Amino acid sequence: MNSSSDAHPRCEGPKPSLLQKFRQVRQRSVQIIETLSAEDCCAQSMPEASPTKWHLAHSSWFFETFVLEPHEAGFGAHHPAYRVLFNSYYRGVGDQHPRPRRGLLTRPSLAEVLDYRLAVDARVQALLGERGEDPVLHELVTLGLQHEQQHQELMLSDLKHLLAQNPMLPAYLPRPEQPERLECGPTSSLVWLSFEQGMVDIGHSGSDFCFDNELPRHRRYLQAFQLASRLVTNAEVLAFIAEGGYQRPELWLAEGWDWVQAQGLQHPLYWSGGAQTGWCQFTLFGQQALELQAPALHLSLFEADAYARWAGARLPTEFEWEFALQQRPAALTQMFGEAWQWTSSAYAPYPGFAAAPGAVGEYNGKFMVNQYVLRGSSFATPSGHERASYRNFFPAATRWQFSGLRLAK
Amino acid sequence: MNSSSDAHPRCEGPKPSLLQKFRQVRQRSVQIIETLSAEDCCAQSMPEASPTKWHLAHSSWFFETFVLEPHEAGFGAHHPAYRVLFNSYYRGVGDQHPRPRRGLLTRPSLAEVLDYRLAVDARVQALLGERGEDPVLHELVTLGLQHEQQHQELMLSDLKHLLAQNPMLPAYLPRPEQPERLECGPTSSLVWLSFEQGMVDIGHSGSDFCFDNELPRHRRYLQAFQLASRLVTNAEVLAFIAEGGYQRPELWLAEGWDWVQAQGLQHPLYWSGGAQTGWCQFTLFGQQALELQAPALHLSLFEADAYARWAGARLPTEFEWEFALQQRPAALTQMFGEAWQWTSSAYAPYPGFAAAPGAVGEYNGKFMVNQYVLRGSSFATPSGHERASYRNFFPAATRWQFSGLRLAK
Amino acid sequence: MNSSSDAHPRCEGPKPSLLQKFRQVRQRSVQIIETLSAEDCCAQSMPEASPTKWHLAHSSWFFETFVLEPHEAGFGAHHPAYRVLFNSYYRGVGDQHPRPRRGLLTRPSLAEVLDYRLAVDARVQALLGERGEDPVLHELVTLGLQHEQQHQELMLSDLKHLLAQNPMLPAYLPRPEQPERLECGPTSSLVWLSFEQGMVDIGHSGSDFCFDNELPRHRRYLQAFQLASRLVTNAEVLAFIAEGGYQRPELWLAEGWDWVQAQGLQHPLYWSGGAQTGWCQFTLFGQQALELQAPALHLSLFEADAYARWAGARLPTEFEWEFALQQRPAALTQMFGEAWQWTSSAYAPYPGFAAAPGAVGEYNGKFMVNQYVLRGSSFATPSGHERASYRNFFPAATRWQFSGLRLAK
Amino acid sequence: MNSSSDAHPRCEGPKPSLLQKFRQVRQRSVQIIETLSAEDCCAQSMPEASPTKWHLAHSSWFFETFVLEPHEAGFGAHHPAYRVLFNSYYRGVGDQHPRPRRGLLTRPSLAEVLDYRLAVDARVQALLGERGEDPVLHELVTLGLQHEQQHQELMLSDLKHLLAQNPMLPAYLPRPEQPERLECGPTSSLVWLSFEQGMVDIGHSGSDFCFDNELPRHRRYLQAFQLASRLVTNAEVLAFIAEGGYQRPELWLAEGWDWVQAQGLQHPLYWSGGAQTGWCQFTLFGQQALELQAPALHLSLFEADAYARWAGARLPTEFEWEFALQQRPAALTQMFGEAWQWTSSAYAPYPGFAAAPGAVGEYNGKFMVNQYVLRGSSFATPSGHERASYRNFFPAATRWQFSGLRLAK
Repeated sequence: MNSSSDAHPRCEGPKPSLLQKFRQVRQRSVQIIETLSAEDCCAQSMPEASPTKWHLAHSSWFFETFVLEPHEAGFGAHHPAYRVLFNSYYRGVGDQHPRPRRGLLTRPSLAEVLDYRLAVDARVQALLGERGEDPVLHELVTLGLQHEQQHQELMLSDLKHLLAQNPMLPAYLPRPEQPERLECGPTSSLVWLSFEQGMVDIGHSGSDFCFDNELPRHRRYLQAFQLASRLVTNAEVLAFIAEGGYQRPELWLAEGWDWVQAQGLQHPLYWSGGAQTGWCQFTLFGQQALELQAPALHLSLFEADAYARWAGARLPTEFEWEFALQQRPAALTQMFGEAWQWTSSAYAPYPGFAAAPGAVGEYNGKFMVNQYVLRGSSFATPSGHERASYRNFFPAATRWQFSGLRLAK
Repeated sequence: MNSSSDAHPRCEGPKPSLLQKFRQVRQRSVQIIETLSAEDCCAQSMPEASPTKWHLAHSSWFFETFVLEPHEAGFGAHHPAYRVLFNSYYRGVGDQHPRPRRGLLTRPSLAEVLDYRLAVDARVQALLGERGEDPVLHELVTLGLQHEQQHQELMLSDLKHLLAQNPMLPAYLPRPEQPERLECGPTSSLVWLSFEQGMVDIGHSGSDFCFDNELPRHRRYLQAFQLASRLVTNAEVLAFIAEGGYQRPELWLAEGWDWVQAQGLQHPLYWSGGAQTGWCQFTLFGQQALELQAPALHLSLFEADAYARWAGARLPTEFEWEFALQQRPAALTQMFGEAWQWTSSAYAPYPGFAAAPGAVGEYNGKFMVNQYVLRGSSFATPSGHERASYRNFFPAATRWQFSGLRLAK
Repeated sequence: MNSSSDAHPRCEGPKPSLLQKFRQVRQRSVQIIETLSAEDCCAQSMPEASPTKWHLAHSSWFFETFVLEPHEAGFGAHHPAYRVLFNSYYRGVGDQHPRPRRGLLTRPSLAEVLDYRLAVDARVQALLGERGEDPVLHELVTLGLQHEQQHQELMLSDLKHLLAQNPMLPAYLPRPEQPERLECGPTSSLVWLSFEQGMVDIGHSGSDFCFDNELPRHRRYLQAFQLASRLVTNAEVLAFIAEGGYQRPELWLAEGWDWVQAQGLQHPLYWSGGAQTGWCQFTLFGQQALELQAPALHLSLFEADAYARWAGARLPTEFEWEFALQQRPAALTQMFGEAWQWTSSAYAPYPGFAAAPGAVGEYNGKFMVNQYVLRGSSFATPSGHERASYRNFFPAATRWQFSGLRLAK
Repeated sequence: MNSSSDAHPRCEGPKPSLLQKFRQVRQRSVQIIETLSAEDCCAQSMPEASPTKWHLAHSSWFFETFVLEPHEAGFGAHHPAYRVLFNSYYRGVGDQHPRPRRGLLTRPSLAEVLDYRLAVDARVQALLGERGEDPVLHELVTLGLQHEQQHQELMLSDLKHLLAQNPMLPAYLPRPEQPERLECGPTSSLVWLSFEQGMVDIGHSGSDFCFDNELPRHRRYLQAFQLASRLVTNAEVLAFIAEGGYQRPELWLAEGWDWVQAQGLQHPLYWSGGAQTGWCQFTLFGQQALELQAPALHLSLFEADAYARWAGARLPTEFEWEFALQQRPAALTQMFGEAWQWTSSAYAPYPGFAAAPGAVGEYNGKFMVNQYVLRGSSFATPSGHERASYRNFFPAATRWQFSGLRLAK
């Protein structure tokens, strides 16, 4: 991870056209499965995760449903069954195949899903050729691409979870000499950065794309706070474990403690081994020695919160995180491109939030309960997808995402 | 409910001494079971609810553990087994009897638990006689009384849930000619009250008792908002039902919709009947016709949120609720003494929140995840227990509490 | 246990009249709760067990439904709600209150249930006075008494289970100097008794009462077999434990092994302690040292089967058990009055079995799947209730009954 | 189904050598997947079913473990991980990959599993070439082939279940003009055949292969009985449905009724439609109109038992079934090659049964609890695998096997 990704990403050079972006993004999804078999792409490791094949199909369904259907003259469905099979959760559009049963869809085959992708690609490109200037169409295609980029990251987190279920612990890719992505980079020394109390502006500004949950931009008052200049490392989590962190109820939220006890957890997801034999970590490159200076990954909010309490600190609110980045882009490292960072903020609508009308309005708003916001981005987030105002969100027990933490005080 | 309870409650007349308060509060708990049998007091209707007998014992355990043990010379436990049996969730103190199994404790008998209460009463009163000026002791006894008042309300909500499981739908009390408490009062016409944007102060102020979660008092910036002058009524919820409110997914949060579907819900808890046969409502006075103008009760956050969306409104934040009360105590009716009011605020620590050291610090802080704040108080809240800064909290699916809603925009 | 109970029980002395029997049996049920509180009688420890109060009411419901309703002129229900509340599983009669929720019935109170008993007693006795010679009535009253005796044993096994859930391990009764019943007696040395192959007659004969599942008496061919003269003792089960019996999958049926592993079982139900500290056993007299020479109790079929395999033996079939008793009543000890004895026989209808018409025919036949037959009787079986042809039955994982085993080869 | 398969099958023509049989049987397993994709072969539709790929691997593991390991000089495992991944339930051999997670094994790939098969084939054939006369080796290879034939039928029942989960209801094979197998044939008119009471011999005789659960051959005494000359048809089950069969508790075993209610069942598995729109049936040829005269399939024991009670009959015991076939091979149709036939016999050891020593002894004996015996064979049973003494067995709620029923009286 080079240092430029630590700063708030900005567009440089001539901006690619929407058509160019469309081709790049759609192509990237297919590249992800280059080393995988049809079997690898079909299996589903748990209800929360989806098969790679399903991601490939669903992201095409999104374009078919929200771009082609309302805009293409004489629209006809690629395959009537796909309308239901690959609808994730848009109730305004119709029925959905039950999420926990996505892994049983051996038909359509991977080859048929790739054909579906090509057909949708051709039709969207034709539409863009004809009506590329239509701002509504432009907006929906952009939304579809952002949506697809979200699924590109999920393809990797879901795939990692699947491979980890296999006792042979197969690698997604052979580890290169100089691992560049698919893994976190080393971490610098921690500096506490201080911020004064005061009024701040939170939420997306400007005319670039953002999701509806980043709007409206609005004012907030923040108390003075401190934020760590870098992420918590594996070495630091090892110290937490060594001091009995997973056995001390006073460090945990009550629900977190019940969860840790019920699951019998002793360390982050994908870790194995121990102090005697050495710690290992399952990665997309297969089983590897734990990299001590790398940011800790695959933590739940419960674990992140317990770690912070043990460390005499706390998690930042999402507003502190965003404001700090506005103020100190250079001093804060690892804000993007390493690990998503849990905040203490429950996922809630911004004052004045309004979901888009119609089924596409189900994208974000209906999930605003019992979830917590993560900020930043991970090594698996597609380049250019990250934003200072970006709000990722998952339930507090989620571990299979590329999630770590940054301390606040 | 007289009108004075709508305003922010204030102490009037000469303040009772702590000893007087102690006697009043402790006596009130025993009055609650006057019409109940030992059997009624022993049963547990669900893991979330506790037997009345357990509440009676646990509130005594609290005094024994947090008042007597650290302050009484030569302290000895009333009964060694009670230390575990009646510990609710204080891990810093020792083990707890599993919550879902409280209803299996036919021993100690109700009579033995009442003896336990008397013994604790005598010892606390002796201690207060000797060292009543000790501010630490004063604070802990006050905490114990506030704690007991919370359990007095839970005794009624838990008991109502138990009686409702009995197909004979027995009454806790015969309905008096002029029902005064144990039921909601009528509701006035709705006025939308407007509030300007600006800085506000949130949290408890002054030297009177408050729970740690109401502190520290701190500044917030609020956007302009409107708040309804009264609670949502049963008649209004009937209109929601009549327009298919429980069948329309677009009105619900995704998790709420899954929950409504899985449970097959068609109306609020304790309602029965329907448009043809007339609606009934199970109350502490037994089965009654639904009172159309009374505030709706026993709503979950999910239902409250869906109702608000259907009504073109939203739930207030807890900060809006508290600030509105500061500004308009006279214009806002039913803020207290009718039904707890769901807010859209996730239960979270105030900036700078610190739990008390030791086991008593487990009182509030460790529950600050996946719960939502309710403000105000209900008809079942002991008089004098309510406060403008009071923060009640329950998970979003909770229905058996005396919970309703007030709309905001 | 005196020796006479080892032999097949026979009636001696002048036979009591049905009215006398009715009074004796009905009185005995109420004697069982003499030392219990109303709370003790109300609680339900698990879905398979029932509250003592429910047993008292249900056995009265049985008389009301099957004796009074069809025979009493101008019959009226004692209380309409009781018809459903205290129906166990007779679908032909109407609805049933759900079994797992019997412990939530704090109303009717214990006092009201005892009133219900007295009222039913008076009405049945009046009916017997008027029409005592009616053979159908005679048969139904006899069935009702046999049914009540079955529930008398269940009252004790269910109560023991309830008291065992209480961490204080309260006793049902103080242990007398010379425990006579409510506990197993000592055991003699084991003799293997041999039986030749040949045709045998199985099932009830004669005109005395029996349940429908003991009929018709029919012929079977048995291979030669051996049967142990006595039950397996606690000392023998300790040896099984010491040799790793609960940790060796080769000793267990596959389903039994999965069950033992899932439950983490290491010893029979109600045992605690171990080789170091000494073994204890929870009994109706409270916590006691394990009596080594007493018959092992509270074994599931899975445990009994694993023990037998470890001992180089097997469980007898129910036909071997019954035939052996016909042949060797004097040589076989502990056939009755100590512990029910698991057999390897699945509970199935005898050739030509026909259930009685109407709801009373639901008594036995509909349970003839996935259950196993136990023969003999336990110390808790009411005197006079046992029979050579008696077929008790429970699912293979059942442990809370007074169940042990006798080996066969 | 031609008529010869209705009689007890006999070997005709020169007997193939063991090597020939080995090649035939092993080849047949691979033929089964000819029309399937690697994805089809990898997915697992429920914990009770296994992926086709897993069946292919496990049947090879069986040869590797029980034939090669003890007999091949210098034996080495094909792949160390396969020893655990493809062990089904043989605890004496080592660990097993958890059954519900077989569908997550995207590695080894189908191609690698086929390589595994070829490697095992070559090694077993080499061994047979060297030591083909060794009777122990001969016996184990024969067992391995019989085992593989069992899995060939499971491959089809498991695959059918998987395809039925797909809303597109894909066909395994296109329906041929003259369906010959993979479907049941038409049914003749029902004749009740009568059998006298008397001593019979039950169990396998002769020197041909049989499983250990068919031994020892032993004598039994049977009461007189009647057996239907043919299976129950779809038309007859439709009549049962039309008369409310799935809604009448008096027809069902208590556990069966609870199961039917909990699952909301209204008809046999894979049926859809109804009286108005016409009944359809999902088959290996895809969705088809229900064939009225074909034997009913995919019934649980609970449904078969309820149907028999409704029809005024009962299920035969397994002994009646076997004896009838001995007496009347010509008069009984559809004994083999159509549908497995539920009996009322719990799966239990024959008198004197002894499992083989070592892990191979886990094949049958440890499952002899809470399962019921099915006799005959289905259209999916490999030709030559069926036997008069064959004992198939499944839990009473099993529906996805090719199971029907024949009535008895």
